[in-house]
Amino acid sequence: MQIPLGVSNRHLHLNTSDYQTLFGEQPLIKRNDLSQPGQFAAEQTVSLKTDKGQIDKVRLIGPLRPYTQVEISQTDAYKLGLNPPVRDSGNLDQAAVIEIIGPQGNVTKAAAIIAARHLHLTPADRKRMNLENTNEVKIQLLGEKGAIFDNVRLKVDENYALECHLDTDEANSCLAKTGDWVEILQ
Amino acid sequence: MQIPLGVSNRHLHLNTSDYQTLFGEQPLIKRNDLSQPGQFAAEQTVSLKTDKGQIDKVRLIGPLRPYTQVEISQTDAYKLGLNPPVRDSGNLDQAAVIEIIGPQGNVTKAAAIIAARHLHLTPADRKRMNLENTNEVKIQLLGEKGAIFDNVRLKVDENYALECHLDTDEANSCLAKTGDWVEILQ
Repeated sequence: MQIPLGVSNRHLHLNTSDYQTLFGEQPLIKRNDLSQPGQFAAEQTVSLKTDKGQIDKVRLIGPLRPYTQVEISQTDAYKLGLNPPVRDSGNLDQAAVIEIIGPQGNVTKAAAIIAARHLHLTPADRKRMNLENTNEVKIQLLGEKGAIFDNVRLKVDENYALECHLDTDEANSCLAKTGDWVEILQ
Repeated sequence: MQIPLGVSNRHLHLNTSDYQTLFGEQPLIKRNDLSQPGQFAAEQTVSLKTDKGQIDKVRLIGPLRPYTQVEISQTDAYKLGLNPPVRDSGNLDQAAVIEIIGPQGNVTKAAAIIAARHLHLTPADRKRMNLENTNEVKIQLLGEKGAIFDNVRLKVDENYALECHLDTDEANSCLAKTGDWVEILQ
């Protein structure tokens, strides 16, 4: 069973309060829709800063959420001198402290995670793919730098588009790109 | 069968002529030995430059070789706007053109590759590990971001230290570090 790959570059989500601190009265502006319904890349970007380094032009993903979360790769984490935990989106337990710099203000908080590998699907997709008895799969990428990745968590919702999400380290290790096909292994 | 992992950050090898262009009369100075006998990280570094970007402090590996070769990750390649081929060390067929900047001069040539995954071992290791009938293996890394990587080429020489070499994209995709153990799968 093959499904499309979406590669997630570093990005962040903001709650309303932190958005206002970083961007003031500036409205949140959509740049382009993402594959998951309702999610979009905003025109707005921030800088991420620590004592060890800084990464600029980190894209805000809209709409605003109940929580502020910065999703980076291990490569980014080394650059910033951070040791963030691997977490599902929305779970900020032991998230790494990071400074987020916007045009109107800064926020420093425990918000940085490395996203767990995951796969978006609907309940109908899950049934069709015979995945109702599991919460995780392995996925295989083919090619000259092929690989199999463990612990790809199922995220099930009526409104999700079927897509496997990897970060840039995972995709680049296989020379894979958004739109490539991945094979689901149980 | 488990063997140690060595993670290769971006680096370069130089031939004598290019070394002299980049560093003039400056002697090649060892900073520290590497795990493969005779190989060392030099004190010297260069910058890598293209129209799209620049990466500084790229480490020179000694001793000098018959060829000049720049080994980068796919993440580096995106930053530099390059599309280098995956190659075994010493094979520069269709290598990407890159500018190498030293303190005394610059060299622009087709030298950039993404290193093929590989594994150093002696003929005795190969026999002991029952790998005499193959030139490639798969390797498995365990953990929260575990993975299996295909197409890990055997590099056999009497003088090699037993070690599997991955690049930073591959290691970071699994949160793996130099000195971790990898399992060899056939």
